[in-house]
Amino acid sequence: MSETRTSTLKQTSRLVELIDEIARKGRNASKILGKVASRSKDEALLKMAAAILSEKSYIIEENRKDLEDAKSKGQSKAFIDRLTFNQNRIKAMAEGLKEIAALRDPVGEVLGMRRRPNGLLVGKMRIPLGVIGIIYESRPNVTGDGAGLCLKAGNAVILRGGSESLRSNLAIGELMRHALTKADLPKDSIQVIPITDRSAILELLKLDNYIDVIIPRGGEGLIRFVTENSRIPVLKHYKGVCHIFVDESANIDMAENICINAKIQRPGVCNAVETLLVHEKMAKEFLPKVVRKFEENGVEIRGCERTKKITPQIKRAKEEDWYEEYLDLILSVKVVSNIEDAIAHIEKYGSDHTEAIVTRDYEKAQTFLSKVNSSTVLVNASTRFSDGFELGLGAEIGISTSKLHAFGPMGVEELTITKFIIFGDGQIRN
Amino acid sequence: MSETRTSTLKQTSRLVELIDEIARKGRNASKILGKVASRSKDEALLKMAAAILSEKSYIIEENRKDLEDAKSKGQSKAFIDRLTFNQNRIKAMAEGLKEIAALRDPVGEVLGMRRRPNGLLVGKMRIPLGVIGIIYESRPNVTGDGAGLCLKAGNAVILRGGSESLRSNLAIGELMRHALTKADLPKDSIQVIPITDRSAILELLKLDNYIDVIIPRGGEGLIRFVTENSRIPVLKHYKGVCHIFVDESANIDMAENICINAKIQRPGVCNAVETLLVHEKMAKEFLPKVVRKFEENGVEIRGCERTKKITPQIKRAKEEDWYEEYLDLILSVKVVSNIEDAIAHIEKYGSDHTEAIVTRDYEKAQTFLSKVNSSTVLVNASTRFSDGFELGLGAEIGISTSKLHAFGPMGVEELTITKFIIFGDGQIRN
Repeated sequence: MSETRTSTLKQTSRLVELIDEIARKGRNASKILGKVASRSKDEALLKMAAAILSEKSYIIEENRKDLEDAKSKGQSKAFIDRLTFNQNRIKAMAEGLKEIAALRDPVGEVLGMRRRPNGLLVGKMRIPLGVIGIIYESRPNVTGDGAGLCLKAGNAVILRGGSESLRSNLAIGELMRHALTKADLPKDSIQVIPITDRSAILELLKLDNYIDVIIPRGGEGLIRFVTENSRIPVLKHYKGVCHIFVDESANIDMAENICINAKIQRPGVCNAVETLLVHEKMAKEFLPKVVRKFEENGVEIRGCERTKKITPQIKRAKEEDWYEEYLDLILSVKVVSNIEDAIAHIEKYGSDHTEAIVTRDYEKAQTFLSKVNSSTVLVNASTRFSDGFELGLGAEIGISTSKLHAFGPMGVEELTITKFIIFGDGQIRN
Repeated sequence: MSETRTSTLKQTSRLVELIDEIARKGRNASKILGKVASRSKDEALLKMAAAILSEKSYIIEENRKDLEDAKSKGQSKAFIDRLTFNQNRIKAMAEGLKEIAALRDPVGEVLGMRRRPNGLLVGKMRIPLGVIGIIYESRPNVTGDGAGLCLKAGNAVILRGGSESLRSNLAIGELMRHALTKADLPKDSIQVIPITDRSAILELLKLDNYIDVIIPRGGEGLIRFVTENSRIPVLKHYKGVCHIFVDESANIDMAENICINAKIQRPGVCNAVETLLVHEKMAKEFLPKVVRKFEENGVEIRGCERTKKITPQIKRAKEEDWYEEYLDLILSVKVVSNIEDAIAHIEKYGSDHTEAIVTRDYEKAQTFLSKVNSSTVLVNASTRFSDGFELGLGAEIGISTSKLHAFGPMGVEELTITKFIIFGDGQIRN
């Protein structure tokens, strides 16, 4: 065997051992964490926030090294922006941890206690999921937010961020782990994987005996890679091709406000609208008005043939436009004959993320609500409300487009599961 | 290329096409099924029950062919028993379908509607999961029960039972599909895969674009095979190594009744007790009494050293006994020093399925309930109550030991997911 090959094998087996050890430590920490009082978890969260604020120059210094490497590798401006951790972003992360500390603890909540005919009292109690693996791109803020939410729900977390953010993530992780120790919680409740090699992810995704769920956060490529290689259940959040259907009965000003807000308030996020569907009886009055407003705001419109007839200055949409998540100041527009056509379009081209109807018609509102099975369905409101904080979840770990466990924005409750609890007085089964 | 190889390739590509077509048809059926009224689904369920009863001689005839093959292959008695479909079992399956029809439809239920500060009314509505794949052993009753439960919750189902039960499954499937058509529902809401080759399962497990969840029902080997090869989320139900802890304060007669019931009422099922943990202060009084009673009922006891000192006639338990799911008239018994030791034993050797405590002590009951995170935790009742019907779920599709989506007995509600529904009056995001 050649020397190189021997050394590669040794490296591989060291990597396997290290990942296995991390996962095992996570499992052990989760067993303790699942039973501690809310007070201890909140204390740890507040200590984490304080440590991050007081040691911010350390984080910024480590982040600077990451940034230098990324720049020398010629990463894009958007990439550099996401990777950058300045005073404001550090403050925001610390604030986020304080907000998580202030949330109600979901663990221990009892749901739906009912008496059975034989006298048994049967209910469900929320418990932590156990160990959560978060795999994300080079956004150091996820290290703090993700760890905080997992901890609040009593879960141990294993973090694997993009390789370009490794030093930033390790610095944040180190401060959080120190805070855990000071709050008498196991420091392995939060672990940052120190290996940038992709094989570390592959190894992690095999350990279904230690890890309960994997949450990938990032682009479609990352999510597909994780899904295809994981033996552990994955809570995916694929893209958001969100639609607004403006019905013939819509209040025209309300429709315009909602459409503009849903597109331009923050075009780069998954709950921004990508396709506007307009009822044919509304098109002539509504389209010229709203298209002008869009154009004033720098939005490029790509319309169907009927749309182009009414507003000839726009581009013609191609078939692939209807599938597109632009994440940019671009909008596709289609005139439809009725609500059924609108729903059929959403079913064919949509991504099960978020859809809205603007209408004054009771029956159409109900039809849209019951027949569109996307993770968030709105009547007369902007798609931008499909967000954990806006929906009252307190914070958000991601938006699931998987129809299992959680569908739509996920808060701390979605990081728990329930067990049955049963109070008897000697019942046996006949 | 040799002729054999060409023909194998052709067969493989035919298999891939066929499975793909089944999955696609399932997806299309699910889109319709998710929107139909409860009445139609219940009508179909009742027609299915009627067809199964009126055509029972056809089912029995097909089942007889399956049985002949199985016998000629030298299958075990227990295997033949599970495969056998007689008048009584057919009646039971038809009754089951009627009971499912009588359950409340979970689809459309709205949960937790709340007003947000900006006036938005936010809640969650139950919707079907979509397409469910059930992979099971040679038990034809699962074909009826599984299909019925999936249909009730608005899901299309793809059934793949053990190869020895293929003719029975196809016969039941044919009758159910005919009933669907008569109730004006898509017949592809229920599909039985007509291929016995294991590669058909492997193919199915890749189709995460069409299938939303896989439920394997059967032994550990089958479940492991499915989990390791699936790109689709799997709701596992591994083994049940269930424990009863008899505390020092227990009512001794109640403890005896519960222990005997949990072991002997039906020893071959996953919620039967496998290990009895006895507080050391209770051991001397309780063990001789309960061991005698077990022995009278033909139960073999395998005890720890301390147990054997008190009841010397028993066998000595080996380390591997504590991990064992006997599914038989065998029980392992251990004397523990306190409730903490009992919980530590359950954590180390348990399977997160079902555990019970017998106690009169308030604090210990609460400790056990909050610190034992198995899917069902009982105080003063038999482990045999860990069952969908007994817990009031109406029926049961399985008992999940995965801590995701559902944990413990799963009824029709667990075959749904929620979407967010939002009522606004023009809200936009700031």
